[in-house]
Amino acid sequence: MIRFNCDYSEGAHEKIMERLIQTNMEQTPGYGEDYHCEKARELIRAACNAPEADVHFLVGGTQANLTVIAAALRPHQCVIGAASAHIHVHETGAVEACGHKILTLPSEDGKITAKQVEDCCREYVGEHMVQPKMVYISNSTELGTIYSKEELSELSKVCRRNHLYLFMDGARLGYGLAASDNTLSLEDIAALCDVFYIGGTKVGALFGEAVVITNPELKPDFRYFIKQRGGMLAKGRLLGIQFEVLFEDNLYMKISSYADRLADKLRAALTAAGYSYLVENQTNQIFPIMSDEKLGQLQDKYCFNYERRIDETHSAVRICTSWATKEEDVEALIKDL
Amino acid sequence: MIRFNCDYSEGAHEKIMERLIQTNMEQTPGYGEDYHCEKARELIRAACNAPEADVHFLVGGTQANLTVIAAALRPHQCVIGAASAHIHVHETGAVEACGHKILTLPSEDGKITAKQVEDCCREYVGEHMVQPKMVYISNSTELGTIYSKEELSELSKVCRRNHLYLFMDGARLGYGLAASDNTLSLEDIAALCDVFYIGGTKVGALFGEAVVITNPELKPDFRYFIKQRGGMLAKGRLLGIQFEVLFEDNLYMKISSYADRLADKLRAALTAAGYSYLVENQTNQIFPIMSDEKLGQLQDKYCFNYERRIDETHSAVRICTSWATKEEDVEALIKDL
Amino acid sequence: MIRFNCDYSEGAHEKIMERLIQTNMEQTPGYGEDYHCEKARELIRAACNAPEADVHFLVGGTQANLTVIAAALRPHQCVIGAASAHIHVHETGAVEACGHKILTLPSEDGKITAKQVEDCCREYVGEHMVQPKMVYISNSTELGTIYSKEELSELSKVCRRNHLYLFMDGARLGYGLAASDNTLSLEDIAALCDVFYIGGTKVGALFGEAVVITNPELKPDFRYFIKQRGGMLAKGRLLGIQFEVLFEDNLYMKISSYADRLADKLRAALTAAGYSYLVENQTNQIFPIMSDEKLGQLQDKYCFNYERRIDETHSAVRICTSWATKEEDVEALIKDL
Amino acid sequence: MIRFNCDYSEGAHEKIMERLIQTNMEQTPGYGEDYHCEKARELIRAACNAPEADVHFLVGGTQANLTVIAAALRPHQCVIGAASAHIHVHETGAVEACGHKILTLPSEDGKITAKQVEDCCREYVGEHMVQPKMVYISNSTELGTIYSKEELSELSKVCRRNHLYLFMDGARLGYGLAASDNTLSLEDIAALCDVFYIGGTKVGALFGEAVVITNPELKPDFRYFIKQRGGMLAKGRLLGIQFEVLFEDNLYMKISSYADRLADKLRAALTAAGYSYLVENQTNQIFPIMSDEKLGQLQDKYCFNYERRIDETHSAVRICTSWATKEEDVEALIKDL
Repeated sequence: MIRFNCDYSEGAHEKIMERLIQTNMEQTPGYGEDYHCEKARELIRAACNAPEADVHFLVGGTQANLTVIAAALRPHQCVIGAASAHIHVHETGAVEACGHKILTLPSEDGKITAKQVEDCCREYVGEHMVQPKMVYISNSTELGTIYSKEELSELSKVCRRNHLYLFMDGARLGYGLAASDNTLSLEDIAALCDVFYIGGTKVGALFGEAVVITNPELKPDFRYFIKQRGGMLAKGRLLGIQFEVLFEDNLYMKISSYADRLADKLRAALTAAGYSYLVENQTNQIFPIMSDEKLGQLQDKYCFNYERRIDETHSAVRICTSWATKEEDVEALIKDL
Repeated sequence: MIRFNCDYSEGAHEKIMERLIQTNMEQTPGYGEDYHCEKARELIRAACNAPEADVHFLVGGTQANLTVIAAALRPHQCVIGAASAHIHVHETGAVEACGHKILTLPSEDGKITAKQVEDCCREYVGEHMVQPKMVYISNSTELGTIYSKEELSELSKVCRRNHLYLFMDGARLGYGLAASDNTLSLEDIAALCDVFYIGGTKVGALFGEAVVITNPELKPDFRYFIKQRGGMLAKGRLLGIQFEVLFEDNLYMKISSYADRLADKLRAALTAAGYSYLVENQTNQIFPIMSDEKLGQLQDKYCFNYERRIDETHSAVRICTSWATKEEDVEALIKDL
Repeated sequence: MIRFNCDYSEGAHEKIMERLIQTNMEQTPGYGEDYHCEKARELIRAACNAPEADVHFLVGGTQANLTVIAAALRPHQCVIGAASAHIHVHETGAVEACGHKILTLPSEDGKITAKQVEDCCREYVGEHMVQPKMVYISNSTELGTIYSKEELSELSKVCRRNHLYLFMDGARLGYGLAASDNTLSLEDIAALCDVFYIGGTKVGALFGEAVVITNPELKPDFRYFIKQRGGMLAKGRLLGIQFEVLFEDNLYMKISSYADRLADKLRAALTAAGYSYLVENQTNQIFPIMSDEKLGQLQDKYCFNYERRIDETHSAVRICTSWATKEEDVEALIKDL
Repeated sequence: MIRFNCDYSEGAHEKIMERLIQTNMEQTPGYGEDYHCEKARELIRAACNAPEADVHFLVGGTQANLTVIAAALRPHQCVIGAASAHIHVHETGAVEACGHKILTLPSEDGKITAKQVEDCCREYVGEHMVQPKMVYISNSTELGTIYSKEELSELSKVCRRNHLYLFMDGARLGYGLAASDNTLSLEDIAALCDVFYIGGTKVGALFGEAVVITNPELKPDFRYFIKQRGGMLAKGRLLGIQFEVLFEDNLYMKISSYADRLADKLRAALTAAGYSYLVENQTNQIFPIMSDEKLGQLQDKYCFNYERRIDETHSAVRICTSWATKEEDVEALIKDL
């Protein structure tokens, strides 16, 4: 069985594993106050050209999302996101468990627009309704699409005009930045967002998300929130070491590109074979629509993620590549399609 | 600088690191639904002689504490613990952030008694006060002390009589079980508590706590809570693999004993040298009282955890051994004391 | 200025005011444990033919909603409601502030169907999503519509099959029950819902909602929740006295009918004059669509609630009657329409 | 049976009842936006000499406490109070249900000192512990004692130095201000506290607490919190009307003095008869220690609040006077003592 269902089926990139072995018996302070974390923070600030940014390392995406949102909002404030937002659909009400409503905006492709946000702010006025205070986007989105520099700039403008924080979930940021049609840089993102994170779990690490806070309003006491929500890793250096490796020698972008190129190859084959898509994109997640018969033929050999029924005889599935995908497996799949 | 300040200064036991390397490129399902987790669950159920227990793996102690408590209590219910309880003092209000009050009982040695719990239940009656529903203990405690089988049996009895859940925080369970004066087994604990966890972070693992639920009332939907509170590791197998190694060949108890024996050696030397203790115990944490002058002499070479001022010229510190402590470092410290 | 904008512009029915004066210097126990509350509970149980029901008195609707929901759900569970549900739109995230997500279903007329609920339950499965556990409906709804006995029976069936609690917000229950096309009785509601409340604030009382719990699972410790959420009135008898008066001599239904008949009269005049409606209904709230010119003419003399823009020259407004509406004011408005 | 157990056994002062009758059929906007509320706000600002203060009316004390605290604190922040604080002991964990820990300081008489607060701030440092941000005091306290101007000034100074908000629960503020040994004025309190409330429920009103916010940091969006926590009364004018009456012609202080003078009379008789007290004070709550035999004799005729057992044959009780206490009842009790 070859797993294409997600981008977290394996452990970590070999360079990370090597470094974990090398550093294993070092004695360091706990809770992210060691020199590996400090080094990784410096590398990330440099990559973002954001020398004043605060950088914090968290273990996972849901944890990062709920910690950032809980730290940023007062109890009567809400976060705006796409109806398909991970925080809305797949995190078991984690944001609501911290006391906050998520206002959702309709979206076909997982993205929301500056205009939608503006309209939402005009509608939500007065103390009988929640107060919008943050916009949550993901890039690449849950549907593998990405924001252009122009789109993100517009969102950023409307957020600043309405005193909203712009928060980007970057669980798959590498695969977004490495997409063939990408126009954003890490530096752009740091300049346009108030807080975002750089995903490690799905991009080469065993686990880990690097939260980058550029808006000074969001910086105070952030470590209290990490601890309170259960996200402060005792051996915090494990996170530092992994991001150190990922941001040395541009490894993060190299492995992201590797995955996206394999996806491009697969996408080309799918398109050539006449498949259509639930949503078109250029990142590591592909959402082809297949006949149930074809799916039945493939399922003994390959594992996909079932997305949804399209009609009586067709379904959409998700096929992911990652830093760990073997070229030979992609070729085998292309042959079988 | 030799760190004796805590028991989480290094990475993981070499056998764990080896296994992580070996399994690194395996493809497995996520979220703890892989066969390593299943294997580890079986090993733990066997070690506890609790074939019906549910076993869940979480990354850290605060996360385990808040997840168990949030899952067990209704909003008007509270947890009872020692005034020195980790959840009360050192978790940034994580339990309160989940909506629950902690009722504290005075304690000199970190332990609470069945009588204290009984009295508390008699005092807290009626809807103008919170309703006691859970007792939280740690073993070994924050002060390195342990519960005897008789003490735990009494606590268990009073809890069952008063419809309270008994929850043991076992972040340092190994060091408790390996203490020279211990009378408890894992099997006893599984029989007497409703839920407890076996700490890995401080006992050989990179991270990880194995929550064991024996009371059927606490089992339903527990995975929802793990996900909602941000504790569901995408690559859950990392937890499974580590506990698999720890519970094969009795490694967990072997390395716990190793640390406790080093602590015994150090304790003997301290006692012989005339030091007294903040609290006496037989586990891997030692709390000697030292003159500030002596502390000053040692501080260039050794790192201890400062506990508190005792008088104008003396302080209590914490010295920890662990699975990773080198015998030569203990001998050097003994010489310097 | 004559206020038709809502049904809570005045104080209380004169019989209630008289009784408050008569009983003012009685000495009673606090917190709803007095004999007026006990008497009112008995009258309500009798009116509902629900001798085993628990009845609790709360001050207001948002308070009643959040207290019932907080008491009924575990943290990972959610409540399902119409997109127009008061708890979703107009309570400042009160339910989310208690930790729970609201799943919304599209609705044109403020009502939801058994089929929608069934579909929602099929979609929300597994620990990465919230778990549906309660259905919230209002009757009459925020748009003045009502559920038929058949519709409520279907909803009740689907809830019981899926282990969901059915909760009816009855802030305007009287006006629903008195509608000319109503087919439900209080007894039906008590039999089909697990918990509901009988609104007093909008139906003759100064304030007060009577929560009726028929499902034994929802009864334990409910008073703890009232106290914890700030809803326990020290002089609880004020609630008991008011509901005593409302449920003696059928006053509650008499004044509800009075308001609905005035609304019928107004509605007949509006229809005769050619107005259409945002939503059609037979209760005390009317939602006519008017030209902005007409609205401009009326606004010096009458106060309506602006609902929403319909097109460039028309808007929908809400006109309410109540127990306190004067017949002469309705006639004046009819003349001016 | 004559009730001396508490100060909320009756309805409201006759002037309030009269005004409620007079205004009953007025049509006003809801939610506290009517002219009675505005008038009452002006009267209170004038009484406090705090023209810039925000004044909000809430129904009850627990509601006021939880709303103020939820609005003031970020999730990792806590409130400091006496171990006997009402929010800690008698509000069913309402503050924790909003997510915040209460740090308690030992107190014999219900009061806390500036030094205790200072020490607490020094102890609670760093992200593994909650962050102190508010001090909660009550005046008069749960034990009937009051703060002197000097004591409150010292507390205020230490709070400002440590960036803590000073919050006074004034559920019994009138009885504190009218005490024979009081040195504080409303103006002092407004100047020294950041937020406080003037209790109506126990001082002449049917219900109602007037929250006065003087610190500009605490003003923004406060009405959102009132609504979200279920405290926004639809017919908000009921609160405005009551405080209008209480603050016209100095009624609030007149009725408070009346109650305190009756308590003084009772206290003098108790002292003369040789009774000692759990705590000495000069307000409307008296805590005499009585033999159980004497208590047994009195209990058929009088209702007291049982406080606690003192020794095998004696108990402490609470005897309250209020604006509604009849002089003849006090005289009867004096005779029977």
